[in-house]
This record gives sequence, C-alpha cells and structure tokens, in this order.
Amino acid sequence: MSIVQPYKKEFTHSYTSGAYATIELIKARPDIVETVLIHSAFQHSTQLEMLCVQNKIPFEHNDNAFRRIRQKENSFVCGLLRKYPSELEPDRPHVVLVNPSDMGNLGTIIRTLVGFRIPNLAVITPAADIWDPRTIRASMGSLFHLNFRHFDDIEQYRAQFPAHRLFPFMSDGGLELRPDNVPAQPLFSLVFGNEASGLDERYRQMGASVRIAQSPHIDSLNLSVAVAVGTYLFCGAYLCP
Amino acid sequence: MSIVQPYKKEFTHSYTSGAYATIELIKARPDIVETVLIHSAFQHSTQLEMLCVQNKIPFEHNDNAFRRIRQKENSFVCGLLRKYPSELEPDRPHVVLVNPSDMGNLGTIIRTLVGFRIPNLAVITPAADIWDPRTIRASMGSLFHLNFRHFDDIEQYRAQFPAHRLFPFMSDGGLELRPDNVPAQPLFSLVFGNEASGLDERYRQMGASVRIAQSPHIDSLNLSVAVAVGTYLFCGAYLCP
Repeated sequence: MSIVQPYKKEFTHSYTSGAYATIELIKARPDIVETVLIHSAFQHSTQLEMLCVQNKIPFEHNDNAFRRIRQKENSFVCGLLRKYPSELEPDRPHVVLVNPSDMGNLGTIIRTLVGFRIPNLAVITPAADIWDPRTIRASMGSLFHLNFRHFDDIEQYRAQFPAHRLFPFMSDGGLELRPDNVPAQPLFSLVFGNEASGLDERYRQMGASVRIAQSPHIDSLNLSVAVAVGTYLFCGAYLCP
Repeated sequence: MSIVQPYKKEFTHSYTSGAYATIELIKARPDIVETVLIHSAFQHSTQLEMLCVQNKIPFEHNDNAFRRIRQKENSFVCGLLRKYPSELEPDRPHVVLVNPSDMGNLGTIIRTLVGFRIPNLAVITPAADIWDPRTIRASMGSLFHLNFRHFDDIEQYRAQFPAHRLFPFMSDGGLELRPDNVPAQPLFSLVFGNEASGLDERYRQMGASVRIAQSPHIDSLNLSVAVAVGTYLFCGAYLCP
C-alpha cells in the first residue's frame, strides 16, 4: 500500500494531482509512471483503470494514500512518477525564464508554450521547482510534453546555444513589438525576467531588447501574460508548425 | 484604532493588501479610501504618509490591525476602501467574462485589460468576487482603473449594449484568429467562458465565434492567457489608443 508523502524538492519522485494531469502523464510518458492511486470518490474510475491496463501501469484503490496530501488539493487521482532528465532541441526556438519564482506562473507558462508549439524551456536557477505537484497541476499535465533544462546562469545557456539570437523582454526594451514588426529570425530565444524584478541591465547587451506596448496605468503585465503575448507574436501556431 | 476584518463578500467595504496596490488605489480613487494602515515593518513609510497627506487620507500605524488578516498575505500596508458602483463605457469595446471562478485569473485579467487599454469588463454572475482582496491583489491595484458591471445573464448584457458585436471565444470557434485576419469592427465584445466549462452552445449563435490556434497537446489555454492573446489581437495598444 502506497502513501503519498507531501512533496519535497530533493525527492527523486513527484506526482500528478487530479485526473486531467494524470491522464496526460500516462498518455505522454507511460514509462515514468510508477503507480496510479484512485480515491473511492472518483467518478470515472473504469476509464482510468483501462488506460492504466493498456499502458501496463499498476493502479491502486486507496483512500488512505491521499490522507497526507489532500489538504487544499481536492484531488481524487494521483500519478506517482520518477523525475527524468530532459534536453532542449538545439534547432528550435526557446523560451528562457530567469529566476521565475511562482509555481502557478511557471505551470501556466509551460501550458502556453506547449499550446503555442514552442515546447523548449530553459530555466535559470534559482527558480520555482518545475517538478512540484503545484507546478505540474498549473501546467495541466503539459509538462510531460515539454523539453526543458536548468542552467546556473545565462552565460551557461548561451555557451550551449550560441546560434540562438536572444530577445530580452524589458519594460523599456528598444523595439515596441507589434504584429507587423516582429523580427524575422529562424532561431531565437525569448528571455523573460523574474516576476518582481524583471531583467537587469546586463541583458540589454545580449541581444535585441523588445517590449510589449502597455498603458501607464499598470507597472507591468503578469509574467505568464507577457510570455503568452510574446511567444504568440514570435511564434503563432502558424509560424512554428 | 482599526482592526481589519477578514473580508466577506457582503461587506460594503474591502481593502488593498500590499504597498503597490494601496498606492494605486490612492492615486486612482482617493475619494473612496477610508484609512491607510501601516505596519511597523514597512520600510518606505514616509513616502506613503506624504501621499496620504497630499490626498487628505487618514493613516494609522497599527501592527495590531493586521493581526487577523496577515496569514499568508505577508502584507505591511493596507488601504480600507468603500466599494463603489461602476458602469461600462457604451462607446468602447468590452470584454465579457461568463462565470469566471478564480480570483487570481480575474485579477490578472483586469491587469491585462487595463494594460491593453480595453478597461471595460462585464461579468456574468455567478462569478468570483471582484472586490475580494485577493482579486484586487492579483490585479496589482489596476481594478481602480477599470470600468465594470455585473449582469445576471448574457441577455441582460446584450439588451443594454445592442450595438456591440459579440465574438465568443470557443475551442471550436468558426474563425481561427491570426494577426492578419482579425475582424475589423469598431464596437465589439470579446466573450470568454468559465475556466472549466468554457461557453455553451447558445453562444455560437450570438455573434461570430472565434478560436486561438493551439496544439492538440493541451485541452485549452489558461483563461487569463486566452483573454490576453484575444484582447491583444483585437485591440493592441496601437489599435485602441
């Protein structure tokens, strides 16, 4: 009988919380799923069990397993998974997040990048934990369709991907983006700073700084909104098939 | 001496939590601020006091006042405010949210609408509370730059604004939006459904349904992301000056 421990960053395992993310996990990465736990209050147990059987994944009906984690999550399905290494595709555009601190934002951004077909994310540490169940939940399970890699600093990232042209998003960036003036560039990295502090001045010299037009009544856009509009402009679904 | 009560929806008052939202409140709507409370741990007290004095707003140094609300908010400044009625501008574009349920999304959307200069929001109830301190906080105080109104149903909204052309955002909407095919329409309402359920079939007949292109690896975009991309396309800052 399994008990799901409250997650800690140093664990080699994590879990999905909720049916939707768990089903995405099983469909995308059945190889890393250890067990699926199902609470007796879950309504669609038969379909989920069939999906597990098809993918040779053990499942367990076990209300007790949820005891220690359910608090606010209100989840009736849980997929225990092994963390895995991931690499960025060198010949595709990337998004680079510098020290993102909010797991909700990080998960929402992952969902957006997968949705907009730019599923390559570099994260400069320190950063919110990409494996935390709250991040996975905010991503709606799209984490399992994402290529990602952590870097200690931006120099380490640039050394590995020297051909990518960097576009740092800064509130006073040099080019105000519009749908009709987005730089045409096959291989690019869109770089976004931390929620509170943005990107520091060093980044301006690393590429062509850009900004998203906005009224003076707000200090900045929410990070996940800025990433969404930026990636849509550079890489609408019709641009990055 | 004031004590800030944990907020309830039926109150005629609410409050901002945090320095940024409180300063936005004072600058935008000094007429509705009753008192500003300042915790002794707040670092920039003098500037805030001067802003209060300039606007003839009483302030109070009172650590005890925060006792009942600080829990997770970690806030050292609080602006007590009277709720006020608001109306939509009849000759400007609107966004309509049908039953939004998440205060974080609602606040982020308000911030986006103010940022993208489309500050007119209709909310179809039941909905997350626009006055809840968590919504105000997620809006970063931009709520005080927003025109908004609640409606019992979409028919009530349409009866009041018959000249607005409705664009319901649906996952299988008729037109896949791209930057170069956005319908040219001076007076429009962009309509978005609830986070979990979207818009029901009735909405398809009410206007020209649209969709945002996305990969099959996600079920849908996050609501605040869909609203951001949709409003940006229809009403980039350069379109709605």
